[in-house]
Amino acid sequence: MEQIKTIAFVGAGNLAWHLAPALENAGHIIKYVYSQNSENARTLVNRLYNAEVKEDLDFSDSNCDLIIIAVKDEAIEGVATELIIGENTRVVHTSGTQPMSLLGYLATEQIGVFYPLQTFSKSRNVEFEKIPICVEAQTPGLHEELMVMGKAISRKVWYVDTNDRKVLHLAAVFSCNFTNHLFLLAKELLERRGMDFEILHPLIIETVQKAIEIGPENAQTGPAIRRDNEVIDFQKSYLSFDEGMAELYQKLTDSILEHLPNPEKENP
Amino acid sequence: MEQIKTIAFVGAGNLAWHLAPALENAGHIIKYVYSQNSENARTLVNRLYNAEVKEDLDFSDSNCDLIIIAVKDEAIEGVATELIIGENTRVVHTSGTQPMSLLGYLATEQIGVFYPLQTFSKSRNVEFEKIPICVEAQTPGLHEELMVMGKAISRKVWYVDTNDRKVLHLAAVFSCNFTNHLFLLAKELLERRGMDFEILHPLIIETVQKAIEIGPENAQTGPAIRRDNEVIDFQKSYLSFDEGMAELYQKLTDSILEHLPNPEKENP
Repeated sequence: MEQIKTIAFVGAGNLAWHLAPALENAGHIIKYVYSQNSENARTLVNRLYNAEVKEDLDFSDSNCDLIIIAVKDEAIEGVATELIIGENTRVVHTSGTQPMSLLGYLATEQIGVFYPLQTFSKSRNVEFEKIPICVEAQTPGLHEELMVMGKAISRKVWYVDTNDRKVLHLAAVFSCNFTNHLFLLAKELLERRGMDFEILHPLIIETVQKAIEIGPENAQTGPAIRRDNEVIDFQKSYLSFDEGMAELYQKLTDSILEHLPNPEKENP
Repeated sequence: MEQIKTIAFVGAGNLAWHLAPALENAGHIIKYVYSQNSENARTLVNRLYNAEVKEDLDFSDSNCDLIIIAVKDEAIEGVATELIIGENTRVVHTSGTQPMSLLGYLATEQIGVFYPLQTFSKSRNVEFEKIPICVEAQTPGLHEELMVMGKAISRKVWYVDTNDRKVLHLAAVFSCNFTNHLFLLAKELLERRGMDFEILHPLIIETVQKAIEIGPENAQTGPAIRRDNEVIDFQKSYLSFDEGMAELYQKLTDSILEHLPNPEKENP
């Protein structure tokens, strides 16, 4: 089995910023970086050992084993239609929401997905070895190669197909995007009364650690699961200044009640 | 100013389990522990240096500077009506949701609230010095004494009155109780497809660290804030198997959109 050695990046955003050096550190050679904004490509190239800025999407003479398309979801299809690849070049995208089949335009069967499940910003360091990588490939050979490449940079590599990946992304929306928004609502509630969000930091950290260690199904606390109607009624009426927030409070409270484990036990 | 030295606990649950030893380590003397369930009182007493189990609520001869009522919210009022205190004994409760005035039954003006903002379980160790403590008192003297006692065990002691404390508790419901429930929903989504919640742990941890470091208003990601209607429509339709969850998804997505910073900027 031939291993992936030489790599080109299409896209030079937050993900490429972290993934390209991680692959280099694991012994891969990043040969080219293409970006619509060639300034971004240059900045990333300056972080790498031997990479060059590529000015177009014709990779027919590039001799790369793999092209990693690390662009915004809505740009993947456009890249796939324009990309010209050499013989034996594999192509993956890195999206949690887009199907592998988006790369079906390409003149190869060697297509796949290499999706690191993390939120990336250029200014924040990440430990790649802790980032789960979700791999999918159209051929068994590429599947194996991507698993090897994934394990070279991370301790957690999972096979996740397109349908499962979409559900995984939805689960990430619930547990991360929506969670962050709840933090914002909490911060606003505090600031309306002159209090600082900092006061909640230790409780938030402990809540997350507890959910991770004993499972969220064993970690639920608060007025909803206690069926503390006095507190629930007070909190709902307090939120009357913001209809959207009051409705959200109600829906989340209802949802906790619907998920009560064995309600018979508590109401014999 | 006289400092609080000798203390009795009414209640021997999760909070007392952690608070009583923390106060001992800071030089206080826990003289008595009362619990409706005297077995619980005995278990806590066994963790402490010189404490004794108290069999009733008559503390008139106890010579305690402070009685800490650490019982469930709904039991505070009952305790306050039954409690008999000696001269110069101060009394606090430890609830985030109940007003200080619940202790108005007592034959003293020296009442207050000593509310450590954390979730406690007997099996989980906590670092008390990182736990914010919210203090309220009816007299300036007791206020000062409680601040001193708080600072003896924690680096973060805040003055928070009854009305603010209720809002703080509501903010904790949003950022912790509701957050834990979102983790549960994410876990269930994954398990329906045979995936493990573990795959989300690193993303959850990074999400929380980012929100704490740069503020949730700067950390929001995901399809809602990107106005990615293709993904939003897919996710809503995927959730059609559970009406409650689909509605929750919609409300949270709407709420993120309502909180977009400077929407004009993106839609010139």
